[in-house]
Amino acid sequence: MKLIIGNKAYSSWSLRGWLACRQSGLAFEEVVVPLYDEAWDKRREGDEFAPSSGKVPILWDGEAVVWDSLAIVDYLADKVGRARFWPEDEAARAMARSMAAEMHSSFAALRRKHGMNVRQIYAPGPIDDDVAADLTRIFELWAQARARFGGAGEGDFLFGAFGAADIMFAPVCTRIVTYSLPAPRFAAAYIGAVLRHPFLQDWIAGAQEEEWVIEKFEQPVA
Amino acid sequence: MKLIIGNKAYSSWSLRGWLACRQSGLAFEEVVVPLYDEAWDKRREGDEFAPSSGKVPILWDGEAVVWDSLAIVDYLADKVGRARFWPEDEAARAMARSMAAEMHSSFAALRRKHGMNVRQIYAPGPIDDDVAADLTRIFELWAQARARFGGAGEGDFLFGAFGAADIMFAPVCTRIVTYSLPAPRFAAAYIGAVLRHPFLQDWIAGAQEEEWVIEKFEQPVA
Repeated sequence: MKLIIGNKAYSSWSLRGWLACRQSGLAFEEVVVPLYDEAWDKRREGDEFAPSSGKVPILWDGEAVVWDSLAIVDYLADKVGRARFWPEDEAARAMARSMAAEMHSSFAALRRKHGMNVRQIYAPGPIDDDVAADLTRIFELWAQARARFGGAGEGDFLFGAFGAADIMFAPVCTRIVTYSLPAPRFAAAYIGAVLRHPFLQDWIAGAQEEEWVIEKFEQPVA
Repeated sequence: MKLIIGNKAYSSWSLRGWLACRQSGLAFEEVVVPLYDEAWDKRREGDEFAPSSGKVPILWDGEAVVWDSLAIVDYLADKVGRARFWPEDEAARAMARSMAAEMHSSFAALRRKHGMNVRQIYAPGPIDDDVAADLTRIFELWAQARARFGGAGEGDFLFGAFGAADIMFAPVCTRIVTYSLPAPRFAAAYIGAVLRHPFLQDWIAGAQEEEWVIEKFEQPVA
C-alpha cells in the first residue's frame, strides 16, 4: 500500500488517513507532498492524484484507490477486520460511527479558524462563538462516549481501546493544545492520552523533521 | 427500529437514512418531524433527539442510536451484511466508499443553493460557478464508477446493483430534475434509473401526501 499525504505539521485529514493505516497493522509506503508548494504543484496534477482531484490523503492498494480519510478507515476495516477500528458492542459501535461521521461533516468553524499545526503551542487568545459552540458539542460527545462505553481511567480512549473515533478526533486534540483552547478536566485527560499514543508521537516527530514552513499556518488566532 | 426524519419533500439527509433502512430489508417505524414547524420544536428538544442535538435522521434500534446518514448505512451494513450496501470487489468498494464519503463532506454549493424539493420541477435558471464545479466533479465520479464497475446498461446503477453510493447521491439526482440542471446523457440515464427505483417512488409518493409547505424551499433559484 502507498499513502499520499500532505505536510505532517499541517494536514489534519492526512493525519487521520495515516493513523488509520498504522492502526490497520499493514505495511505501507508514505509519500509526503507539501501543501501550497509550487515545486510540487505539477505532481498534484498527475495520475497519482487524479482520483481525488488533487486532495490528500490518497491510499493506493493495488487496483484499489481510496481518497477520503473516513473511507480509508472502513476500507482498511474491511481488509483487516472491523475489531481494530470499531467497538464490538452494537450500541457502542452505533455511537462511534455517528461521532466519526459527525466529525467528518461538521465543526467547520474550529477547523477553519484553528488550522492544525502540531509544531506550535500558542498563548490563549479570543475564541469566536461558533468555535466555542463546536467545542461544546465535541466535549459533550466525548463525555457521553466515555461515560457510556469508554471507561474513565487514565489513558482510556473514547470507547476503551484506541479506534476509529479517536482517529477522527485526533486533530481536534492537537488543535486544543496548539491554541491553548479551554477544555474541561476529563477532556484534557483524554487529549493527553491521544497525544501520548505512540502513533501520534511518531507523527509529531515526523512533523518536527519537516523543513517546509507555510506562513498561513504559522499565525496564532488574532 | 425507529427512524426519525424530516419532511419527505425537503429533507435530503433524511432521504439517505430512509433509503438505507429500506435497503437493509429490516422492518422500521418511520416518524416524520417537519422542519421549521413551531408545533414540533418542543419535540426536537426532547430525549428522542438528544443524541443529535435536534438533527435528523436519527435511527433508534434498542439501546443503539445512530444520528448520521452515512453512519446509518454502515451500522445497517454491519447488521445485515455488507453486500447489500457495498460492492464485493475490493477496487469497486474502495471507489464506492470514497464517493460516498466525498458526498458526505462536499458539494456545499449545490446543497445550499439548490435545496431538495421532490415535489417541484422548475424551469432552467442561472447556475453559479461553484454549483457548476460541484456538478462537473459529480458527473466525473459517476462516469468513472459506471465505466469501471457499473456496466453501462439502461437501469444500471453506479456499481451495478443499487447500493450505498446510489443512496448517498439520490438527493443530487432529485435536485438535478427539480432545478432542470444540465446533465450529460449518461448522467440523465442514471438519474432516471434512480428516480424509477421503487424506494424513490415510495418516498416521492409520501412527499406528495405531506401537507406542510415551507416557503423557503419553494423558491426556484433566482
